[in-house]
Amino acid sequence: MKRIVTATVLNQSGVLNRVTGVLSKRQFNIDSITVGRTESEGISRMTIVVNVDDERQVEQLTKQLNKLIDVLKVADITEQAIVARELALIKVLSNAQTRNEIGGIVEPFRASIIDVSRESITIQVTGDTDKIEALIDLLRPYGIKEMVRTGLTAFLRGSQKPVTEITNYSLLK
Amino acid sequence: MKRIVTATVLNQSGVLNRVTGVLSKRQFNIDSITVGRTESEGISRMTIVVNVDDERQVEQLTKQLNKLIDVLKVADITEQAIVARELALIKVLSNAQTRNEIGGIVEPFRASIIDVSRESITIQVTGDTDKIEALIDLLRPYGIKEMVRTGLTAFLRGSQKPVTEITNYSLLK
Repeated sequence: MKRIVTATVLNQSGVLNRVTGVLSKRQFNIDSITVGRTESEGISRMTIVVNVDDERQVEQLTKQLNKLIDVLKVADITEQAIVARELALIKVLSNAQTRNEIGGIVEPFRASIIDVSRESITIQVTGDTDKIEALIDLLRPYGIKEMVRTGLTAFLRGSQKPVTEITNYSLLK
Repeated sequence: MKRIVTATVLNQSGVLNRVTGVLSKRQFNIDSITVGRTESEGISRMTIVVNVDDERQVEQLTKQLNKLIDVLKVADITEQAIVARELALIKVLSNAQTRNEIGGIVEPFRASIIDVSRESITIQVTGDTDKIEALIDLLRPYGIKEMVRTGLTAFLRGSQKPVTEITNYSLLK
């Protein structure tokens, strides 16, 4: 099953390497990883999507990450009310005939065409993983020349109380 | 100066750790990093934005990354004609009075409001780094409660010939 883990880290040399070290040592199957700046200077936020067999594995991961230097906070937010989005850029083979046809597919996804050349067009789409995969499936028959995805970034919705991570590490469980 | 380096890698345990190991050992100042799947099964694409003092540093980085196991191709695409985009989710403090006002700021950026609660709204915006930073600057006065960014993802525009990376490693330079 897929789990979404976020880690708030000090933006310092080596922290990313320490985090990926934990993931690699335990042979976690990583689906995607994003690291970007946050609202606070010097603090970055990582969103890691991992494929695990059971919940205990994720618990172990969050524990291990919490122990690292420069890691301020780790949370498995999969079960929470979250906003999760990723961005994909998709370059599709297209000529004069198929250009309009592809435009018709892209529109209902609220995706946009951001580059056109003689034999291809580039589509930018933002959404949850299901939406992006549905669009990719529809575009595949035309021939996908190139595709890049940022991986999921996520945080909690505004309408819930802040999560206390303590529940994750209770000894009584 | 900022440089955008892309690396095509085999999606195997440990490759991410080896790449971040190189970055950490040489103390590269990483602005953002994204890793996501591509059009080919089992192959991922990393986009790394680094802050360097001179071009020689980037050359060194691409050379070092190219040497790694599971790394198929590395390119510094900064000078090329590229499409580069990132995604940001921004949670802004907002009440009944300011909600419309914020809506008016968000619209020209083609950003969208994806979550509303009593005291905050969440905005999703996609674009190049400059655009996203311009929007953040406009939203800051309202109070940014939380923000996550995916970091830049990028590839070459459709209308140019494929790059031959050989030029990067010419001994005659």
